[in-house]
Amino acid sequence: MPGKIRTAQTVSLDIPAAEQPGLHNRWHPDVPTIGSIEPGETVKIECVDWTGGQIGNNDSAEDVRTVDLTKIHYLTGPFEIKGAEPGDLLVVNITDVQPFEDSPWGFTGIFDRKNGGGFLDEHYPKAAKAIWDFDGIYCTSRHIPGVRFAGLIHPGILGCAPSHEVLAEWNRREADLISACVHSHPNKVVAQPPLAVNAHAGQATGDLKAKIAREGARTIPGRPEHGGNVDINNISRGSTTYLPVHVPGAKFSVGDLHFSQGDGEISFCGAIEIAGTITIKFDLIKNGVQSRAIKSPVFRPGDVAPNFGPGRYLTFEGFSVDENGKQHFLDATVAYRQACLRAIEYLKQFGYSGEQIYLLLSCAPIKGSIAGIVDVPNVCTTLGIPMDIFDFDISVEAVPKKRDLGSCPISSV
Amino acid sequence: MPGKIRTAQTVSLDIPAAEQPGLHNRWHPDVPTIGSIEPGETVKIECVDWTGGQIGNNDSAEDVRTVDLTKIHYLTGPFEIKGAEPGDLLVVNITDVQPFEDSPWGFTGIFDRKNGGGFLDEHYPKAAKAIWDFDGIYCTSRHIPGVRFAGLIHPGILGCAPSHEVLAEWNRREADLISACVHSHPNKVVAQPPLAVNAHAGQATGDLKAKIAREGARTIPGRPEHGGNVDINNISRGSTTYLPVHVPGAKFSVGDLHFSQGDGEISFCGAIEIAGTITIKFDLIKNGVQSRAIKSPVFRPGDVAPNFGPGRYLTFEGFSVDENGKQHFLDATVAYRQACLRAIEYLKQFGYSGEQIYLLLSCAPIKGSIAGIVDVPNVCTTLGIPMDIFDFDISVEAVPKKRDLGSCPISSV
Amino acid sequence: MPGKIRTAQTVSLDIPAAEQPGLHNRWHPDVPTIGSIEPGETVKIECVDWTGGQIGNNDSAEDVRTVDLTKIHYLTGPFEIKGAEPGDLLVVNITDVQPFEDSPWGFTGIFDRKNGGGFLDEHYPKAAKAIWDFDGIYCTSRHIPGVRFAGLIHPGILGCAPSHEVLAEWNRREADLISACVHSHPNKVVAQPPLAVNAHAGQATGDLKAKIAREGARTIPGRPEHGGNVDINNISRGSTTYLPVHVPGAKFSVGDLHFSQGDGEISFCGAIEIAGTITIKFDLIKNGVQSRAIKSPVFRPGDVAPNFGPGRYLTFEGFSVDENGKQHFLDATVAYRQACLRAIEYLKQFGYSGEQIYLLLSCAPIKGSIAGIVDVPNVCTTLGIPMDIFDFDISVEAVPKKRDLGSCPISSV
Amino acid sequence: MPGKIRTAQTVSLDIPAAEQPGLHNRWHPDVPTIGSIEPGETVKIECVDWTGGQIGNNDSAEDVRTVDLTKIHYLTGPFEIKGAEPGDLLVVNITDVQPFEDSPWGFTGIFDRKNGGGFLDEHYPKAAKAIWDFDGIYCTSRHIPGVRFAGLIHPGILGCAPSHEVLAEWNRREADLISACVHSHPNKVVAQPPLAVNAHAGQATGDLKAKIAREGARTIPGRPEHGGNVDINNISRGSTTYLPVHVPGAKFSVGDLHFSQGDGEISFCGAIEIAGTITIKFDLIKNGVQSRAIKSPVFRPGDVAPNFGPGRYLTFEGFSVDENGKQHFLDATVAYRQACLRAIEYLKQFGYSGEQIYLLLSCAPIKGSIAGIVDVPNVCTTLGIPMDIFDFDISVEAVPKKRDLGSCPISSV
Repeated sequence: MPGKIRTAQTVSLDIPAAEQPGLHNRWHPDVPTIGSIEPGETVKIECVDWTGGQIGNNDSAEDVRTVDLTKIHYLTGPFEIKGAEPGDLLVVNITDVQPFEDSPWGFTGIFDRKNGGGFLDEHYPKAAKAIWDFDGIYCTSRHIPGVRFAGLIHPGILGCAPSHEVLAEWNRREADLISACVHSHPNKVVAQPPLAVNAHAGQATGDLKAKIAREGARTIPGRPEHGGNVDINNISRGSTTYLPVHVPGAKFSVGDLHFSQGDGEISFCGAIEIAGTITIKFDLIKNGVQSRAIKSPVFRPGDVAPNFGPGRYLTFEGFSVDENGKQHFLDATVAYRQACLRAIEYLKQFGYSGEQIYLLLSCAPIKGSIAGIVDVPNVCTTLGIPMDIFDFDISVEAVPKKRDLGSCPISSV
Repeated sequence: MPGKIRTAQTVSLDIPAAEQPGLHNRWHPDVPTIGSIEPGETVKIECVDWTGGQIGNNDSAEDVRTVDLTKIHYLTGPFEIKGAEPGDLLVVNITDVQPFEDSPWGFTGIFDRKNGGGFLDEHYPKAAKAIWDFDGIYCTSRHIPGVRFAGLIHPGILGCAPSHEVLAEWNRREADLISACVHSHPNKVVAQPPLAVNAHAGQATGDLKAKIAREGARTIPGRPEHGGNVDINNISRGSTTYLPVHVPGAKFSVGDLHFSQGDGEISFCGAIEIAGTITIKFDLIKNGVQSRAIKSPVFRPGDVAPNFGPGRYLTFEGFSVDENGKQHFLDATVAYRQACLRAIEYLKQFGYSGEQIYLLLSCAPIKGSIAGIVDVPNVCTTLGIPMDIFDFDISVEAVPKKRDLGSCPISSV
Repeated sequence: MPGKIRTAQTVSLDIPAAEQPGLHNRWHPDVPTIGSIEPGETVKIECVDWTGGQIGNNDSAEDVRTVDLTKIHYLTGPFEIKGAEPGDLLVVNITDVQPFEDSPWGFTGIFDRKNGGGFLDEHYPKAAKAIWDFDGIYCTSRHIPGVRFAGLIHPGILGCAPSHEVLAEWNRREADLISACVHSHPNKVVAQPPLAVNAHAGQATGDLKAKIAREGARTIPGRPEHGGNVDINNISRGSTTYLPVHVPGAKFSVGDLHFSQGDGEISFCGAIEIAGTITIKFDLIKNGVQSRAIKSPVFRPGDVAPNFGPGRYLTFEGFSVDENGKQHFLDATVAYRQACLRAIEYLKQFGYSGEQIYLLLSCAPIKGSIAGIVDVPNVCTTLGIPMDIFDFDISVEAVPKKRDLGSCPISSV
Repeated sequence: MPGKIRTAQTVSLDIPAAEQPGLHNRWHPDVPTIGSIEPGETVKIECVDWTGGQIGNNDSAEDVRTVDLTKIHYLTGPFEIKGAEPGDLLVVNITDVQPFEDSPWGFTGIFDRKNGGGFLDEHYPKAAKAIWDFDGIYCTSRHIPGVRFAGLIHPGILGCAPSHEVLAEWNRREADLISACVHSHPNKVVAQPPLAVNAHAGQATGDLKAKIAREGARTIPGRPEHGGNVDINNISRGSTTYLPVHVPGAKFSVGDLHFSQGDGEISFCGAIEIAGTITIKFDLIKNGVQSRAIKSPVFRPGDVAPNFGPGRYLTFEGFSVDENGKQHFLDATVAYRQACLRAIEYLKQFGYSGEQIYLLLSCAPIKGSIAGIVDVPNVCTTLGIPMDIFDFDISVEAVPKKRDLGSCPISSV
């Protein structure tokens, strides 16, 4: 008779993440497994928030400004999936994600341009943050009054460990990018090479730990071979993701839980970041990489999601002409930035500061779509805002009036 | 008592588009208006297909291969909206779009890499096409058997005429891009400057016609100031778009009707291209550009759209690592291309050719989303395919088997 | 090469329905077929409105009050489906429904209690009507200002002819009901037996016509063996209905087109009634009645429908306690009437008359659901009103204020 | 700074419900309040399952057969809402419902026809049950293999206490029904009068307890004045219900949590019955009964719900002709029963027993709608089954084959 779902790994909110043996923060094939899971089994896995507790439930942005970005993305795992072999597909069916009951809050941050930055850091260079309080599946923020929405809760990061070959390829190509940009963009972080400082190699010790710290891939970018930090908000409850397996046992890790995230996660610390528990049912499709022609993760969202109706999205268009009037060639990134900037200008009319909206677009159920990507030189992207998350009418028909919508903490430095 | 909706402009499928005075194919403030519409009025406007009839309902791709791309985007208009002044917002509520009853078919094309190209032209350099037959709101293609879907029918192009100042800005910045690339990409069309050949200036004659031909902006790119060729598939029935007005009378034009289009319109001639009739209710928000802080088009989709349920989309992930293993920096365009290429490899298993799927992704109700755009160096984009448009099961759980799915015409040259 | 869809039968809006040989208004196995359709074929079928043109586009309810209810439900057909035999399932895939382009309007009526009546005729005994004007897929009414919605357009009636045995069963059981009620409800029309007056037997003449007039089942009720007047609003575009075949050739008929209808069609003449064209793709499942265990019609709605989002329905509850305080036993009909009456009282606050709302609930996209049907003695039903069809805010949070919302024509008698 | 949501009342799964002072099982104005809640406050409220723990997680239906139906519907409450007065509307915004983490299972039962019965008890007279195991927001049953779905979790019962006047009216009208049926249906339970046996009056003692036991309304029926046992499945997470207040302090109670329920809850013990916790945000609209014209509960569903797409529902039609061929007059209850019976016959083809499907229709996300309610003598109702909850293809196109789908426990008596 089925019983209670077992918790495959717990975490603590009181012990520093760096000291918890069930966590790690590098992708490397040799991080020791912390437990085993049978195909067909459902388990709960606890996760710390992506900063490992660096950000507090308070009204100052100083912790965001001074966040130590070498101490992030503590993932829970790796787990051995019994019988998994390279070339299999690991089937990850997420059946629930919950914040910890004793910790019903989360945060969204704008990083200082000199420490992390974000999609709009040329416009909003100072650190800022918003704290969100959870009321069941809904959230509100004292720092962004006037909005309330249900979270499409999900993990930002999930993936299997790379093989040594895959890891080498990552390090090769990202080093190439760094090299290529070193002269053109000397002060810009275009990618992050392996870094021993604050590497958490899980239960590895001694030489192994040193090796992992020296070689392990950083967790910031998602990568095509395994997924990782994909930040896909509809890999939520009910979703099924098919992940390529690269090493025996799969070595699956998960973390960076988000109560909600807008498409793009534009402020970088952009989702509503939480600690909590994810429930996953695992399965295997043997030899699926080849037999299903799947070399990168593929997924199906769940059938339960906020449904505002298509007609309830106020939608902004963005093209690949930047805010300085420069024409770019089919650049979807530039185009999406324009849509973001336009939405901010629009919503400012109602009384929000730019930072409040930048934070809001990062974490609310915002839809970012690619409309046309072939009409040289302009990509057209769209950004849709569900009007029903606001307490007041934000439609174009409504004559806008400034309200007192408070403020979010912004670093004074 | 309300009567039948009037048709503000007809077109002919028998007379060459270049000879029809109700059409034009340049954006210029001086194209003469072809009629007047009152705010609050609903009218029907007929449109030719975007090639002006160059592509036939047949089983050869030769017409696509040799298409004359100087003879395209014949728009119907411009219409004067009574009372519209620069700084107003023109409210465009599309209440219907229909293919002509006598012409219940459309086409999707892949252009030859040397004549038009497209998003995947390095992989699929040869011209190809698919003809679609309409069965009410559904469509099927003899060239891509096994799929059937309802169209989210819409215009690819809608916008108000630019002012002289706006037009000058367009020509300035696009010329800058061309100049900047002339050495780095000497053989690449990065943008198209004004071109007198085959310019259609509507009812303009003599010097005015020559001026428009000399200065008028080409119609391929959408542009932030007015919209234009935005190729947004959910500007469909029921949608309301708010367009900035730049000249007295607004001078609204519309065309490039699509029976259906996937996000990105990736093959360039990528939607199901049709001739037909669009019904629009017009209104004005006086001084709305300033009073609503809207400098680029904004819209709300209609509430009637295909609803497959979120869980019915098989979704592919794409990152900014290109197909040659090169790492790009936060390039959403590269990332979306990867998602497209992965979807093609997946669907080939069922018996389709690459060209068939390239065409299908271009025109079926495919969702292209921006997942994460800040995780240096990788943007993560997603491409979702509604599984219910296929006659057979394309889920990952289904063991794929090759079927006889025919072929689409491909140019032999 | 596929061509234009053929029109299997036309109708005229100028010739009286009773004189058009492509129509009939009785269900009988011997009504002569008017044409043949191949399995796999798509055809267009034109239909008159259900009253055969008795109601005019004007501002008086006199035509509704004096409507001749023996001259109704003129169906187009019957059509022979080639190869259909009793025991097969006829597959009816509706791919489009359109009002006639020259007749872009429809009507909703409340019948006089003494001539037709309706669900709330004890409360609203006088004839009334609303004329609706079509603006593409949307409609508005000068008689019910403040609302606008897209139609979920559909046929009220579709079915195959009964066999002689099925017809005899219908006449037997309905006669039993009439007999059983003759003393208890002497003045109430509980069912309508065959009636020769104004019977339209299609192309039948002489004795055959007389026989059909004498035996033919009336068209008002839907019936489990074949469907008929089911008034199911989501048998709309894209839907597929599986109809049992009772006679060789199936003898399919269709009519009573509705631009839109609320669940329940409560005012009886309750949908937005139109003349127009329906496009259907036919198929057969041989021996499907037995091989699929389907003795009554089964259907799948289309995937294109208005989607307001679940949270946009203001929903009223109704129980089986009637408006006089009498407790009924598990009576879902009483319960739904209560939900209707409550919704009317609520919406009156905004300035509508009871008749206006009665008409509106009949024809707008209202959802009527059975919540609990076992909690003796009370069924609980719900009636959901999409708030987004109104120009103003009808939420409970909005403080209601009376507006000038005009009036609908109501009979003075 | 906001903190953790407080739990307004706990329950125990180990102490008999009859002995827990935070519960009660009669509606009466004098049941003592167990706590106070401020308008604007969010609290958690724990609830036992509706049988107070009588049904076990085992493979026998004996507990269902012998259930004591006088010991049911133990509600948690009543709670005083500070400042609530008769005539106000209590605003109940449900922000979460969860089964207890230590008790991740629920049950669905068919009662014996002689002890409770249900909607189809003439066809399925024996007791049966299914146990459901929860896997996050999804559930499966070892007794009904082949299905899996997400729950639209909700309370079956919520309401404010009646005033003495309202209570007297309930007792009057239900007694009238009992009297009216005593001769015609001597053995049928048409309604349940007050009953002292096993009445739980909460914290009342002595004379007050006796009075409540003697006068208190039973909890089985929902009632129009306050709601109560409405069994409305989309009063789920995110929903807002507006409840009339009849006594000072409102005296709100809630219970009968359902993990999932089909429209109609047809087997009576028909939902997936659970113990668990509901989170509610309370508010007041002062004098709302009059100022909003709301005399019965009104609600808005939440915006998060399973969305299978409209085209994924296989839908059965039911008319008011009963299974014996008897014609009823506009009886929606008979009509819905027919739709249920037809769905059962259809699904039996795949290998299920009738009892398994009867249970499934009761608790899965089944849609029951009123299509047409005015076409004398036949109401048409529809019952839609989401095809995607099945592991296998249940579409009409699929040739059905019998599978081994096990069995559910059925009482042998």
